[in-house]
Amino acid sequence: MTNRIWPDPSIVGGLAAVRSGRPLVYGLTNYIAAQLSANVLLAVGASPAIGGMPAASEHFAAIAGGVWINLAALVTDEPDILIKVAKSANAAGTPWVLDPVTVGAGATENDRVAAELVALRPTAVRGNASEVIALAGGAGGTKGVDSTATSEEAIPFAKSLAKKTGGVVAVSGPIDYVTDGERVVAVPGGHPNLTRVTGTGCSLGGLVAAFAAVVPDKLDAAVAAHAVLATAAERAARTAPGTGTFAVALLDELSLLEAA
Amino acid sequence: MTNRIWPDPSIVGGLAAVRSGRPLVYGLTNYIAAQLSANVLLAVGASPAIGGMPAASEHFAAIAGGVWINLAALVTDEPDILIKVAKSANAAGTPWVLDPVTVGAGATENDRVAAELVALRPTAVRGNASEVIALAGGAGGTKGVDSTATSEEAIPFAKSLAKKTGGVVAVSGPIDYVTDGERVVAVPGGHPNLTRVTGTGCSLGGLVAAFAAVVPDKLDAAVAAHAVLATAAERAARTAPGTGTFAVALLDELSLLEAA
Amino acid sequence: MTNRIWPDPSIVGGLAAVRSGRPLVYGLTNYIAAQLSANVLLAVGASPAIGGMPAASEHFAAIAGGVWINLAALVTDEPDILIKVAKSANAAGTPWVLDPVTVGAGATENDRVAAELVALRPTAVRGNASEVIALAGGAGGTKGVDSTATSEEAIPFAKSLAKKTGGVVAVSGPIDYVTDGERVVAVPGGHPNLTRVTGTGCSLGGLVAAFAAVVPDKLDAAVAAHAVLATAAERAARTAPGTGTFAVALLDELSLLEAA
Repeated sequence: MTNRIWPDPSIVGGLAAVRSGRPLVYGLTNYIAAQLSANVLLAVGASPAIGGMPAASEHFAAIAGGVWINLAALVTDEPDILIKVAKSANAAGTPWVLDPVTVGAGATENDRVAAELVALRPTAVRGNASEVIALAGGAGGTKGVDSTATSEEAIPFAKSLAKKTGGVVAVSGPIDYVTDGERVVAVPGGHPNLTRVTGTGCSLGGLVAAFAAVVPDKLDAAVAAHAVLATAAERAARTAPGTGTFAVALLDELSLLEAA
Repeated sequence: MTNRIWPDPSIVGGLAAVRSGRPLVYGLTNYIAAQLSANVLLAVGASPAIGGMPAASEHFAAIAGGVWINLAALVTDEPDILIKVAKSANAAGTPWVLDPVTVGAGATENDRVAAELVALRPTAVRGNASEVIALAGGAGGTKGVDSTATSEEAIPFAKSLAKKTGGVVAVSGPIDYVTDGERVVAVPGGHPNLTRVTGTGCSLGGLVAAFAAVVPDKLDAAVAAHAVLATAAERAARTAPGTGTFAVALLDELSLLEAA
Repeated sequence: MTNRIWPDPSIVGGLAAVRSGRPLVYGLTNYIAAQLSANVLLAVGASPAIGGMPAASEHFAAIAGGVWINLAALVTDEPDILIKVAKSANAAGTPWVLDPVTVGAGATENDRVAAELVALRPTAVRGNASEVIALAGGAGGTKGVDSTATSEEAIPFAKSLAKKTGGVVAVSGPIDYVTDGERVVAVPGGHPNLTRVTGTGCSLGGLVAAFAAVVPDKLDAAVAAHAVLATAAERAARTAPGTGTFAVALLDELSLLEAA
């Protein structure tokens, strides 16, 4: 296992590629996380479009540079749209990210949709430890949307899941871990306030899609996305006394982070 | 009638109980207010989950520590889901809060759903004066989502409504009033900018659910929720020149407020 | 063509009319932009209500002072609701604004709904260059939700569209242009960060509806709305280092902007 942090050249180069490429990133997510996710993507230079529309979603998935599907999109979208978007991305060769929010929390219909999406082989899966464990078939257990396992405990499940999908799997936690089934990269840093602002996890899913749109190696893409958010969070926490200013400073730091 | 303000021990103790208990608070609300509500709940230490899903909402209502139902959830949720969540909360003994946004504004279908929810005897009702008056059968009248009556005018209607539901009823205004039908507690404070930031009322409904999850006396719970928001708003207004920074400072103050 | 900037008396007077009239502004929009739009409207003193409800939307459109319909509302609303709201506004004599987000991006069903709304003769259309060109029948082309044409290129299309609807048409860009088919007013100013915060365009649509609710000349109304946002954005950018603080400062400046 290796550690990777800003300003590792692969991270700095990934951000530079997003800023210059301005990829269209199409997301299906929920209305709690949508605004922050869009602003996070805009802050790094991507061009976000969010929201399921029966008559337009497949088209957007096909023309986008990257796609992310947050399972909590089910609060407004039909399961059918999530599946169609994943298939459309696959058909167009668009990298796509699955964020399995709520998996293993006891919502059986959501778990069924998640399993169907996993079978479509997402380019990347990003979740917390409980979600990744549950998705890999382990006994994760979540409390609502919060993890009850550590990210270290999730590593073997993440590797197993990555082998199954042929993509990469990322586990968010105090230290994030990203694996392609063989290699495991640890991304330290970040800040506990990331868990006290709604939508940061979903935003990270969007960031992985943005980096995967422009970085050929998908492990590098996912690691860079995690490291950029972790670095911005650390910097934000230095000046932000509470969770309100932290969220604002996080966007500032993302928008000001430069490939020096 | 008595006054209660921070740092009354019942308020400080209520906040301490939320911070240590980290209750899962499940909400049905609307996409305008959802992000702020989630961040308000995270700031006091609760664990929010928001959004109606036909296949999962009843489950979430059953496992949550507290539930709140904002009538404006009807912008994305079917009336049926609101009713099912209330019934599931009742069956599980989960305290639940009704926020009757739009009641009495002329949207007759919404009024019908509100009446059905009242008949299910919410643990607490939280609304502005017009909404509480309308819900109690008075001639309230609202202008869109804003009240056209004073909170003092609503007190007798609030008492009558509380006797009908067997729960507590809270009226928001320059001074908030909370009653269980017999006792009436006034919560002074707050700041006019609370009415100039969207979602603060809905957030307060979520706070009442969070405090009701951990405070046995539901009048104390509702009073503590109102007093905590009022105190945070007063402190936020001291440093915030406009409505943008006020909303950010409000979250900061909520996240930093300590049971000293 | 003339230039108009703050503190032109028609702009200052328009803002004063909004602050004193507190018009109810009803919007159909999407969950990504809804919170910011509501807070922008509250900051200038309007009373926003947002969200489609089959049983209540026509009523709200009829009682509102102004209505705006953002085509991206289709992420949660049925096309039918958009059409009914426009017809209800027309029947009640309520000015309404069409924001044709996604038009010309290849989502053919959205384009069909947009054309149907144009035929209902919106009081004002507000979009970026690509959207206005596409709506006027030109070959616009958009990249997701971003424009690929300049606002100057869109002026003849805007004039043609205004003649068709009998209303005004506004094109957003580094310089905004507003026309009623004959007169063209340029509104310079603003700041590039407006394009790096999600929902600012939708918020501008809401502002146009708020000003149209209280300013008799609809060209003046649309110009004032654009100039107020441009001025607030310029002032916000002076103190805001990144996109997070810019969005917050934008609301501050809108809430503090006074008809001196």
